[in-house]
Amino acid sequence: MTDSKDMLKGSIRGIAEYIPGKSTEDIVATYGIRPGDIIKLGSNENPLGPSPRAVEAVRKMADRISVYPSVDAGELRGALAAYIGYPEDMVVMGAGMDGVVDTLMRLFIQPGTSAIIPTPTFSYFEIALRAAGGIPVFIKRQSDYGVPIESVMSSIDNTTRLIYLCSPNNPSGNIMSEEDVRSVVESTDAIVFLDEAYVEFASKSLVHLVTEYDNLVVGRTMSKAMGLAGLRIGYAAVPTWIFREYMKATTPFAISRIAVAAGLAALEDIDYRKKTIDNVDMGRTFLTEQLSNQCRAYPSQANFILIDVSPKKSKGVAEALLKAGIIVRDCTSFRDAGDGLIRITVGTPHQNRLLVNALQGILDS
Amino acid sequence: MTDSKDMLKGSIRGIAEYIPGKSTEDIVATYGIRPGDIIKLGSNENPLGPSPRAVEAVRKMADRISVYPSVDAGELRGALAAYIGYPEDMVVMGAGMDGVVDTLMRLFIQPGTSAIIPTPTFSYFEIALRAAGGIPVFIKRQSDYGVPIESVMSSIDNTTRLIYLCSPNNPSGNIMSEEDVRSVVESTDAIVFLDEAYVEFASKSLVHLVTEYDNLVVGRTMSKAMGLAGLRIGYAAVPTWIFREYMKATTPFAISRIAVAAGLAALEDIDYRKKTIDNVDMGRTFLTEQLSNQCRAYPSQANFILIDVSPKKSKGVAEALLKAGIIVRDCTSFRDAGDGLIRITVGTPHQNRLLVNALQGILDS
Repeated sequence: MTDSKDMLKGSIRGIAEYIPGKSTEDIVATYGIRPGDIIKLGSNENPLGPSPRAVEAVRKMADRISVYPSVDAGELRGALAAYIGYPEDMVVMGAGMDGVVDTLMRLFIQPGTSAIIPTPTFSYFEIALRAAGGIPVFIKRQSDYGVPIESVMSSIDNTTRLIYLCSPNNPSGNIMSEEDVRSVVESTDAIVFLDEAYVEFASKSLVHLVTEYDNLVVGRTMSKAMGLAGLRIGYAAVPTWIFREYMKATTPFAISRIAVAAGLAALEDIDYRKKTIDNVDMGRTFLTEQLSNQCRAYPSQANFILIDVSPKKSKGVAEALLKAGIIVRDCTSFRDAGDGLIRITVGTPHQNRLLVNALQGILDS
Repeated sequence: MTDSKDMLKGSIRGIAEYIPGKSTEDIVATYGIRPGDIIKLGSNENPLGPSPRAVEAVRKMADRISVYPSVDAGELRGALAAYIGYPEDMVVMGAGMDGVVDTLMRLFIQPGTSAIIPTPTFSYFEIALRAAGGIPVFIKRQSDYGVPIESVMSSIDNTTRLIYLCSPNNPSGNIMSEEDVRSVVESTDAIVFLDEAYVEFASKSLVHLVTEYDNLVVGRTMSKAMGLAGLRIGYAAVPTWIFREYMKATTPFAISRIAVAAGLAALEDIDYRKKTIDNVDMGRTFLTEQLSNQCRAYPSQANFILIDVSPKKSKGVAEALLKAGIIVRDCTSFRDAGDGLIRITVGTPHQNRLLVNALQGILDS
């Protein structure tokens, strides 16, 4: 005799819950700190807030929320294609990078297939993979968080369907060289997913490589440099053959009408993007210099930096910062990150100074 | 030797593209009609527009779009739970009903499993099922579009994981009796998904049955009576054991910050909902009476009515209406709907009169 619980796919049992950065609401509830006093450096959001043009676009579109968006957000998709220099039939979208990842899982993963994930890295890929019934094959990154590409390539077998690369990597901030990415892509027919969520803060993007291969997908997002984390806009450059399959399998209407309007406006706001990137450049240098005396700060090409506070525990340090009203990301929940790593989003100059003062006190104690 | 195209799951090849109702932009492009002159009765949106309170909430939240929403839209989830009379740990959410369906597929479907779908009905369930690698088992509805529950129950086998029921059914507008739903649920351990997207326009909801069973999920949406189709807010009442698994497998941050704000405001606007439902009640009666002389109009408990224009073809009639600036839904793309059915969203009284005048002319010709 069965019961309804036997209907559940076995692979779902292996999924750990996604642990997000703490929200302002969490901190208010736990520590009794006033919302206005909280400095949020835990979720890699843009500390400058959204583009004023995007805000205006949202307000203008507000009275049209009863009408379905276009099925594929075509207007925004076209603008994003132009932004990364691709034709429209090589660009797909999803509700955040997570939405893009979900659809790739639908296309390529079923029980018995696997994906290679160099760790520590962005955790949602593993969750989505397991939800689709796939087997994760973890390769631990080197001590500088570089991807050991020989290990990746020798782990590829006939069950491998996807290889997850993240550059700049979350949470370590380092990038992969073009040569290494090409080596991995050329070594296999499996699909290489290069997550470039943070690439606007890096020295270069590898999105142009998509034209050269049948098996490279480069994921991007409007949540970071474009300042639209609250609206869930992810996209990716894909080979044309994947475009056709993606459009059949993806959830229709995934991008809301408001998101389309704000996304179009944010793309046009070049001035905002320049300010955003300048702020990150300056803040990253400041944080790295100030914190390097007391802990290891890894070189970053993203809008965050990773520090190693060991022998102190990251959990204790992050909690001490919370009591001071500053949210950072304790990396204990990242697989293979150990218990000494903290990820800090680059804030405004004022926020960065407050963080440094508080953290120096905690690390000295 | 393989190539990258061999990486694709076989089940994806069987998916037909989702065909949405035509958008205003489509019609402007094809027929050269001014956007302001187009009457959109093809997508079951609310012709009254959104709740003014929801519009105001969107405008107020506009400058916070750079901040991630809460991971599970908890504030809105709590309010929706209260609205349908359930505790929070029996309510889940997704980006539209489609998002809810996607997560159910992740939980229960893998290659070798199947789902039963009485047709014609809402087409996305089949698409999501195939994308997850599941096999659809179609049962044709009766001539009045009632579900032949004996056929459904005798089709259940050990591969069955989901049974899709839709009440009121899209596109036919008829509801299922409580007795029939109970019979199906009690006949199996498979999960019965009862799609109540349109239930606010019907005489009663069966959402209260979820507490009684381990295998009943009732899906709901804010796109219809709540007037928020543009924001993608779906939800469902689920047994507690499914809640726990759903929260592990669903995409985090699926509901945007703007959607949460608008959803909360719309829920509070009881006056708007009453106007919406009154408008549908009146319009449905008017359309049914006016059109019954020239074609069969099926009794509906939704915000649309289904008519049979045969021996004319629905495609030709829908195109003739488009030329008059009126968008309706030709149902040819619904599996097992044949080529004589048209679905018409109830509009404002003025829109309904224009539709009747235009359609009577076309049917007489």
